[in-house]
Amino acid sequence: MTPDPSTPLSSSPRPHDDFHIFDTTLRDGAQREGINLTVADKLTIARHLDEFGVGFVEGGWPGANPRDTEFFARAQQEIRFRNAQLVAFGATRRAGTTAAEDPQVRALLASGAPVITLVAKSHDRHVELALRTTLDENTAMVRDTVSYLVEQGRRVFVDCEHFFDGYRANPGYAKAVVRAAAEAGAEVVVLCDTNGGMLPAQIQAVVATVLADTGARLGIHAQDDTGCAVANTLAAVDAGATHVQCTANGYGERVGNANLFPVVAALELKYGKRVLPDGALAEMTRISHAIAEVVNLSPSTHQPYVGLSAFAHKAGLHASAIKVDPDLYQHIDPEQVGNTMRMLVSDMAGRASIELKGKELGIDLDGDRELVGRVVERVKERELAGYTYEAADASFELLLRAEAEGRARRYFRTESWRAIVEDRPDGTHANEATVKLWAKGERIVATAEGNGPVNALDLAMRAGLERIYPQLAKLELVDYKVRILEGRHGTQSTTRVLIATTDGEGEWSTVGVGENVIAASWQALEDAYTYGLLRAGVDPAE
Amino acid sequence: MTPDPSTPLSSSPRPHDDFHIFDTTLRDGAQREGINLTVADKLTIARHLDEFGVGFVEGGWPGANPRDTEFFARAQQEIRFRNAQLVAFGATRRAGTTAAEDPQVRALLASGAPVITLVAKSHDRHVELALRTTLDENTAMVRDTVSYLVEQGRRVFVDCEHFFDGYRANPGYAKAVVRAAAEAGAEVVVLCDTNGGMLPAQIQAVVATVLADTGARLGIHAQDDTGCAVANTLAAVDAGATHVQCTANGYGERVGNANLFPVVAALELKYGKRVLPDGALAEMTRISHAIAEVVNLSPSTHQPYVGLSAFAHKAGLHASAIKVDPDLYQHIDPEQVGNTMRMLVSDMAGRASIELKGKELGIDLDGDRELVGRVVERVKERELAGYTYEAADASFELLLRAEAEGRARRYFRTESWRAIVEDRPDGTHANEATVKLWAKGERIVATAEGNGPVNALDLAMRAGLERIYPQLAKLELVDYKVRILEGRHGTQSTTRVLIATTDGEGEWSTVGVGENVIAASWQALEDAYTYGLLRAGVDPAE
Repeated sequence: MTPDPSTPLSSSPRPHDDFHIFDTTLRDGAQREGINLTVADKLTIARHLDEFGVGFVEGGWPGANPRDTEFFARAQQEIRFRNAQLVAFGATRRAGTTAAEDPQVRALLASGAPVITLVAKSHDRHVELALRTTLDENTAMVRDTVSYLVEQGRRVFVDCEHFFDGYRANPGYAKAVVRAAAEAGAEVVVLCDTNGGMLPAQIQAVVATVLADTGARLGIHAQDDTGCAVANTLAAVDAGATHVQCTANGYGERVGNANLFPVVAALELKYGKRVLPDGALAEMTRISHAIAEVVNLSPSTHQPYVGLSAFAHKAGLHASAIKVDPDLYQHIDPEQVGNTMRMLVSDMAGRASIELKGKELGIDLDGDRELVGRVVERVKERELAGYTYEAADASFELLLRAEAEGRARRYFRTESWRAIVEDRPDGTHANEATVKLWAKGERIVATAEGNGPVNALDLAMRAGLERIYPQLAKLELVDYKVRILEGRHGTQSTTRVLIATTDGEGEWSTVGVGENVIAASWQALEDAYTYGLLRAGVDPAE
Repeated sequence: MTPDPSTPLSSSPRPHDDFHIFDTTLRDGAQREGINLTVADKLTIARHLDEFGVGFVEGGWPGANPRDTEFFARAQQEIRFRNAQLVAFGATRRAGTTAAEDPQVRALLASGAPVITLVAKSHDRHVELALRTTLDENTAMVRDTVSYLVEQGRRVFVDCEHFFDGYRANPGYAKAVVRAAAEAGAEVVVLCDTNGGMLPAQIQAVVATVLADTGARLGIHAQDDTGCAVANTLAAVDAGATHVQCTANGYGERVGNANLFPVVAALELKYGKRVLPDGALAEMTRISHAIAEVVNLSPSTHQPYVGLSAFAHKAGLHASAIKVDPDLYQHIDPEQVGNTMRMLVSDMAGRASIELKGKELGIDLDGDRELVGRVVERVKERELAGYTYEAADASFELLLRAEAEGRARRYFRTESWRAIVEDRPDGTHANEATVKLWAKGERIVATAEGNGPVNALDLAMRAGLERIYPQLAKLELVDYKVRILEGRHGTQSTTRVLIATTDGEGEWSTVGVGENVIAASWQALEDAYTYGLLRAGVDPAE
């Protein structure tokens, strides 16, 4: 393997080569329905992945897609990779040409990527029906393209598409493709479960057999169609694969790909295999959420290891045991992956979870049994009335502070409000709200129109209060949920509203309950603004 | 096992006993952060699970929680289970008492559930630190409680909490608990990965050893903290477990539980094991989504088998191959699980399900391809706008009839309406609505007060229409759900309302979508009353 000195190879360090963490978020992850990445998005994600410490970042298919071509040009100029090598993805040469002449193969070289993943067919029916060539020509295409790119100084990995289905149909041919790739100089031959239909036992058996029969270095690429992609990846490792292909947060076509984060966490924490640089695992939660923000999806709250709920405990039974020893109810210390244990305050919980929650909020309740008892009673009473504090941290903190400090924080007082919704004969709607408030001894009357009654109330409240509390200007409502309780009474039920608010730095949730959606929303809005002013350090001055 | 004739056991048929599909959505699933089920929600979910064909529905912990006690009372009166047996969950007797005297054990009997799952400690540290008793007393608690409940004529399963962690710490004690349970008459001893930290290879090894060493019938209960709960469940089956505990959509504490749907699909489609009644697997997608609606969570678009994206192919490369043979790019036929491939324009599965639905409603569409095509298009267009017909049968039937009959059924026409909500200085609320309608050529203006704006509109509408349509008098709104779509825009989002209405004999659901909750509710109310009049056999007479 003699590198061509004329090619601008990346100056990134050569990663540990005994075990590869190969990320394909930028190629396969981008196939997820609803994801549409700009070049700038791709550059940002590549930086996060490099920081996390993956060995390889597959950036896309240069030549097939102008955005990907641009990405490779910019990535090499703009990113100084500390851990990763950049990988270009492409197909083997077309039937009936040479690799050197194939424009697509040339585009791979032109990308400047030091590593190239070639996708190859290894399922006989796909060769015949999709590629429309002979089995021998397909093997020749693999051999030629690999050896040409290796001669040009690139590291080459080969993705055997539909390998497991192909192995079932024609194991001899599937293995012939693996041998062709390895003999031509591919460092790793990656067995792909492209349709995602495999289960771990099947993966493990096939990987073990192919390893024994071919001696090639093997990798695994698993799709999640059976819900087993993480387990399938680990099963391949158990059978001897030393290269795992994953995507951040499991993004990918259809259901998705093997999720990078639980795969890496299992390798590091369960297998005791060092696959990341020092300290990187503790950044996992932050990096997972940051990548979700870039692709414009809410971070999954229930994702293993990194989800907001991944270490959230609800049952009161658990909470008392957790006080004795958190390890009794956690499979790992959440700090190892940069996450935190959260006690959910609910009517299932007792004193122990309230104390833990107080600690989380920086309010020490340990010494004061009577205060904790009062808070427990208050939470139970309010939850019975329909409030829920597990999803409304800010309302809970206001309640806790009111009990601890003897009185509620109040920046304003509501005299009254009114909302009108009108459906007009032409089908349009008018929504108008008026609020009457008191703040700093002053009576405020304000009116606003909105696209609904709650929006109109929100706007009227801001219109009235912003002059006195300019800090409110930067608050924004980012989520709004309505739940009807005791649902068997139709529209005469109790209504609960949860509102999420941001000041551009943090986000907090508040709850309101009432006999109708408007009254409940008003309560949640009051808490949202009160908490926003508390966060901003404003003195309560009624 | 001699049933006590005084106990009102469920009359449901005994399910296949060679392999158990055990659902714990109503107990363990309800531990998920953000889920808060009413008794009515629990009854609805139990019906869906029974329809899906699980063998056991664990309903909750009677005696520990008044809501669960009520659920068992009502479930046995209101649900005629076709496939499932109802299961009550509870703990073994307290230390130092007898099972017969323990009020919690008595509450389990009083629930009337024919099957009882007892949770038992099997990890020595948990016995000592959390339960604060001796290892011997814990084993005695298991033995006593199981044999007492068996004497009382109940089928008993034992959940060994923290089994896998406990087995690692003290395998002898963990197995002693399994033996104690089996010897006392527990039909199944369920090994629980309570902290969810296990990987499939570990599960498989431990289950195989415990099976060989104890000879007990074993079950598996896996949490998803490593992202491997489905694979862990299957690994236990591979090792000889014949009872799997799962939750719908994987709901559960922290990350969640083993997801019922991919577990069942793997057993049926990959193992070739019949675990559901005929035809039930094809209902899986619908039932998964319906349960998500009941718990008020968006159905996960990327859930294996049942997600909207699970068989969605991004166009391009795959298109021509899929045209040749869809099996090349799909691990199963999506129709097997009631899902659809989403790349083809003429969506066969969509058409088929609309035809089936028509048949169910007594409208024969078989012959009319063009009409079915029109309905498919209309449903797609409306669902894109936020409507959902899976949970709104009556609105769907109105849509279908409108297409089939060439015009919509109309008993009345809305000219305009107005709702006012006022919060008064004394803290009370006034809710007033005025509606202007046309029916049988007559203009009607009516006003009413209610406990919220939707209730006021509902009452005004009835006040106006009941004179003309006395059939409306017996209609009652029994459920009302609000969902904010595209939740990242705060109060400016689209709102969807689902209303359930009864006439004392049947119950139907309708949907409305609008830019605010009042406008959406009005639409759903219009459909609810229109459908009620249709059901009552009233001629449309505008």
